[in-house]
Amino acid sequence: MSEKIVIALGGNALQSGKGEATAEAQLNVVKATAESIAEIAARGYEIGIVHGNGPQVGRILLASETAKDVTPAMPFDVCGAMSQGYIGYHIAQGLKYALKQRNIHTPVTCVVTQVEVSEEDPAFQNPSKPIGPFYTKEEADAIVKEKGYAFKEDAGRGYRRIVPSPLPMDIVEIDAIRSLWPSTITISVGGGGIPVVKRAEGLYEGVAAVIDKDFGAELLAEKVDADILMILTEVEQVAINFNKPNQENLSKLTVADCEKYIEEGHFAPGSMLPKVKAAMKFVQAYPEKKAIITSLEKAVDALEGKTGTVIVNK
Amino acid sequence: MSEKIVIALGGNALQSGKGEATAEAQLNVVKATAESIAEIAARGYEIGIVHGNGPQVGRILLASETAKDVTPAMPFDVCGAMSQGYIGYHIAQGLKYALKQRNIHTPVTCVVTQVEVSEEDPAFQNPSKPIGPFYTKEEADAIVKEKGYAFKEDAGRGYRRIVPSPLPMDIVEIDAIRSLWPSTITISVGGGGIPVVKRAEGLYEGVAAVIDKDFGAELLAEKVDADILMILTEVEQVAINFNKPNQENLSKLTVADCEKYIEEGHFAPGSMLPKVKAAMKFVQAYPEKKAIITSLEKAVDALEGKTGTVIVNK
Repeated sequence: MSEKIVIALGGNALQSGKGEATAEAQLNVVKATAESIAEIAARGYEIGIVHGNGPQVGRILLASETAKDVTPAMPFDVCGAMSQGYIGYHIAQGLKYALKQRNIHTPVTCVVTQVEVSEEDPAFQNPSKPIGPFYTKEEADAIVKEKGYAFKEDAGRGYRRIVPSPLPMDIVEIDAIRSLWPSTITISVGGGGIPVVKRAEGLYEGVAAVIDKDFGAELLAEKVDADILMILTEVEQVAINFNKPNQENLSKLTVADCEKYIEEGHFAPGSMLPKVKAAMKFVQAYPEKKAIITSLEKAVDALEGKTGTVIVNK
Repeated sequence: MSEKIVIALGGNALQSGKGEATAEAQLNVVKATAESIAEIAARGYEIGIVHGNGPQVGRILLASETAKDVTPAMPFDVCGAMSQGYIGYHIAQGLKYALKQRNIHTPVTCVVTQVEVSEEDPAFQNPSKPIGPFYTKEEADAIVKEKGYAFKEDAGRGYRRIVPSPLPMDIVEIDAIRSLWPSTITISVGGGGIPVVKRAEGLYEGVAAVIDKDFGAELLAEKVDADILMILTEVEQVAINFNKPNQENLSKLTVADCEKYIEEGHFAPGSMLPKVKAAMKFVQAYPEKKAIITSLEKAVDALEGKTGTVIVNK
């Protein structure tokens, strides 16, 4: 039987390192990303894709706020929904072609996905993710007064709105994603999902928050009973003493290893740390399964055990 | 066996007539729309939803163009994809709750949808749909020179870009929509679909065009073998001599009736005409089926034969 794999795509799978922020540049990068994913499909894996959306949702919000005197600014949850449409469209288009080139006829579909978070999550007491444009102190103070947003000074560049980054609790559209799998490759939980809180049975309401896409992918992997959670990033392997003379790349990590290295501060917050934590969460929930952290280019090699870092329970 | 119905939602199902252009105002209108759709679901119909996106995609493009010196402007196909995420998210959220209130547990999901058009379509020789902001003659001339866009003067208000409105030929994501139906209520082909042209087998490319959402809904109804195509608009029934002292509301129209009244100029282009044409196309393709044109508020009554205009082949 085919193995099920949830693939989390990092920022470099969607945008070139050269900082080209146009949709056209994204589409070109996505075409290369699609080749790697199609190679995984060609090896018989059943695939679900989760993508990040940080730079994209940032630009959508920036355009929306910049134009707010011409047309009303969009709430942040709606910006997230828009980024799912934007990125999902590009991935679906690129992947469909890469699959056809390999004579694979599996459909590809982006499902707009709401992800439930809890307002009891401690993240709501401690908003940490900067979003949108920079403001002067006076502008920020005025917005705080008008809308109650939280702001934080960004050394020398001005004030930016900060929102919480809560953990994902549930995937509202999970039934649809499950019915599509495996006949269709789904692109879902984009950007970690549109964050919503449950107000009553069936009643969800969008909130301004950022869900980490690696935790979103992990939750999806649990919900679809995936065999493998694969987190693709810029480096081929997880390392300790990263970028130091004594850097050591790791092929295998147990949960206990991860805990030790986290304790020792080897993994950067907002970078490798959430990836390792998401991987740990998956193998703690399913001790017989595995997570893999590697680069987009090495994804197939990592599945074949030639490189990457595999995270297992014990 | 349940009847399958494709419901096309017009602008008034998404925005109040008061012209409130905020996302918050849209969400409130969508909640009322969701009640009507949930009532249809409560009567046992299997539902697929198609929505328009004219005002929304217009505002996304406007924000994007207004902010273009701060962050790169988005191509029009991407604006369409973004509008699907935005509107689909709101409809899914509103409908899910309205269903739960009726103890209906059918999932609701928005599928980001590409729709194939042909560059051979005569519409490409005669772009007609104005999109985006108004420009001065000098600005428009500069854009024509730089990007080759077509522009048209809008009496007294300046110049606007115009794009073609081709007929939809195929729905790229139709397999996924079919596999979700009927276990899930799909929101798909939003705004008539993201217009793409086929460059090679499996290779689609976005184009700047506007697909009429009623024709998009009609194509979907054909592809999913729907029993009923229901086009919801602002009026309860199709009328001849509309808004004149001798206005006559019509309960039933055959294709021959439609042809006669179109010939006589009873239906306004860009308004009732495309709806009647989409309805005709459906019953011409499936002579044993029917299309209904009515208002959102009267949708259930129309399904029960109490009002609305039913369009049949003969």
